[in-house]
Amino acid sequence: MEMKPIRCKAVVCRAAGEPLQLEEVVVAPPKAHEARVKIICSTLCQSDITFWRMQGVPGLFPIILGHEAIGVVESVGEGVTEVAAGDVVLPVCLGQCGDCPECSAKRSNLCSVLPFGVFPAAMPRDGTTRFTDAAGEAVHHFLNVSSFSEYTVVDVAHLVKVDQAVPPQVACVLGCGITTGIGATWRAAEVHKGSSVAVFGLGAVGLAVAEGARFLGATKIIGVDINSQKFEIGKKFGVTDFVNPNEIGDRSISEVIKEMTGGGADYCFECVGSSALVTQAFLSSRRGCGKTVILGFDGKGTPITIDPNELLAGRTILGTCIGGVKPKSDIPVLIDHYMNKEIHLDEFITHEIGFSEINKAFDLLIQGKSIKCIMWMDK
Amino acid sequence: MEMKPIRCKAVVCRAAGEPLQLEEVVVAPPKAHEARVKIICSTLCQSDITFWRMQGVPGLFPIILGHEAIGVVESVGEGVTEVAAGDVVLPVCLGQCGDCPECSAKRSNLCSVLPFGVFPAAMPRDGTTRFTDAAGEAVHHFLNVSSFSEYTVVDVAHLVKVDQAVPPQVACVLGCGITTGIGATWRAAEVHKGSSVAVFGLGAVGLAVAEGARFLGATKIIGVDINSQKFEIGKKFGVTDFVNPNEIGDRSISEVIKEMTGGGADYCFECVGSSALVTQAFLSSRRGCGKTVILGFDGKGTPITIDPNELLAGRTILGTCIGGVKPKSDIPVLIDHYMNKEIHLDEFITHEIGFSEINKAFDLLIQGKSIKCIMWMDK
Ligand SMILES: [Zn+2]
Ligand SMILES: [Zn+2]
Ligand SMILES: [Zn+2]
Ligand SMILES: [Zn+2]
Repeated sequence: MEMKPIRCKAVVCRAAGEPLQLEEVVVAPPKAHEARVKIICSTLCQSDITFWRMQGVPGLFPIILGHEAIGVVESVGEGVTEVAAGDVVLPVCLGQCGDCPECSAKRSNLCSVLPFGVFPAAMPRDGTTRFTDAAGEAVHHFLNVSSFSEYTVVDVAHLVKVDQAVPPQVACVLGCGITTGIGATWRAAEVHKGSSVAVFGLGAVGLAVAEGARFLGATKIIGVDINSQKFEIGKKFGVTDFVNPNEIGDRSISEVIKEMTGGGADYCFECVGSSALVTQAFLSSRRGCGKTVILGFDGKGTPITIDPNELLAGRTILGTCIGGVKPKSDIPVLIDHYMNKEIHLDEFITHEIGFSEINKAFDLLIQGKSIKCIMWMDK
Repeated sequence: MEMKPIRCKAVVCRAAGEPLQLEEVVVAPPKAHEARVKIICSTLCQSDITFWRMQGVPGLFPIILGHEAIGVVESVGEGVTEVAAGDVVLPVCLGQCGDCPECSAKRSNLCSVLPFGVFPAAMPRDGTTRFTDAAGEAVHHFLNVSSFSEYTVVDVAHLVKVDQAVPPQVACVLGCGITTGIGATWRAAEVHKGSSVAVFGLGAVGLAVAEGARFLGATKIIGVDINSQKFEIGKKFGVTDFVNPNEIGDRSISEVIKEMTGGGADYCFECVGSSALVTQAFLSSRRGCGKTVILGFDGKGTPITIDPNELLAGRTILGTCIGGVKPKSDIPVLIDHYMNKEIHLDEFITHEIGFSEINKAFDLLIQGKSIKCIMWMDK
């Protein structure tokens, strides 16, 4: 069967921070190891905004952003057997080839055949793009997903098959941020029953950390956010206590958390991407066993500063890609937990709009009014 | 039985960096939870030198240093049943009460009843000293051990019972540095079979890291030291490759190690106490799973600087007290491994002298000529 290019609508971001608009693009057929996917719905992750705003990065624009989505396989490239046309799939920024030493071992989730990274902003194996605009110019891919398009092409190592019984908007939110948060408690920190947890920043990732910690049996889950309204929202996901850094007078966040936990939290999660906050999170962790997990990314790379003596007191600091989760192995487990009503996912969805209203989704997230705003393609 | 003070010889350090000399001290009888121990032999750990040189720390001097030793219980305080007169014991700087939440859990080795620390430089429970000098002045304890004395008093939470069949000089070297190094590979890093390891600084702790990594099945063990002679010594403890940072031209240590390991070492151990070297160790660790363990302590506390993006690539950095080992539970396991000829300990002992020659032991260690110099009390 000869596969044809598909002409469809997509949001092409052409310059940092500019309003987004729909235009026509051409999506080439999938090559070997690839599938062309018709997007059902997308949502927004903080990283979409970070990259949308990023200035002075050569080779980034024009780009089709979006990396939290669900879709249906339209066609597959040569030799692809893992998925077939009609399969519901969740594209994930992180690949899992399944064969390399990293994919075979338990301790790493960074596939060495398809290394994680923003560049090349193209297909991971051959470095070319499957998108062209109306003028015939190549358009870049984003994080191996590019879901702000009616059709996209994804490497099968980046596709997780999803049962048709799962509501698509729910599977959709597991594409990046929510999986990062829950995964960080499960795979990276290995939160234990009865433990104390401090979550710095109650955005989608932070709330997912709370939800993961609640599911794993943490008994004290402290939310830290400069917006006190986040406490009420956080309670839905297991947050038991709250600290607003602007309302603690002269005391440092770590002093307050140490007092609340009798010496320090067993697990601290930084979900903002502020190096200064990483230091506070680290100092808030318990001597002898405290683990601080870094999930925030602000793109600036401000160095993190750590007192070696505090580290020598038996503390750990670690970072992960999407919470240390192996996409194909672990996301189906999270979906099972959801279907068994063990974890909350519906509660992350605060808004549902049509894809053409994408600028509204950006505004809602930037203003901190949404957790996950689902953008349906057919609305 | 009324217990009497004991008059004996000890080395009292009275000012930073001054030559050490024997003088007469009085050692009070042990109180509740305590044992008075007749030292058989001592050795030196880098921390003895660090504190001997430490200037401007109020409440430190006069002090009886020494925290790697073995001895025989002379008498015990009220209610002590865990050890009895005649028992061979290894005093350890880190306490293990056995009852607190930390001692009961697997994940921490920092007892909360007897917190680890240099201060008070006295008995851990009542904060008073058992040593007085000829003028009747109190003399401080060091790290709950103070073995540079014919007799010392130690809290039983800091004593590990040792079988009489174990050569005392061998048990002695497990008091701190060697246990730290081997423990760090076993309890902190959990080095896996077939892994790659980089050890920064081949002093006693670094060599013990290599030995632990060898025992646990690491197949590439890279020693990093500015003294190239350390490679030959390191081979006895499993070192397979060597990097002299002064002989790699313009390249950074991490570039060289990444090249030697095909992307980075699975485990990196910093055993020097240099914050700049911690950064190199961290950058030498593998994306996705690399762990960097901090063991060095220089007393200066220069902050460690870390690139958050390198951390987010799935790396971990952690510090521990004596390698994450729980003294009473884990040191007997190490002794068993030695008795079963599974780990090398004799090879750490490079010199044996009499206690009165203590300045020679300091000189040998400072000049990098000794690994462990045993000082026998009866010589
Ligand atoms: Zn792989
Ligand atoms: Zn994301
Ligand atoms: Zn304890
Ligand atoms: Zn020591």
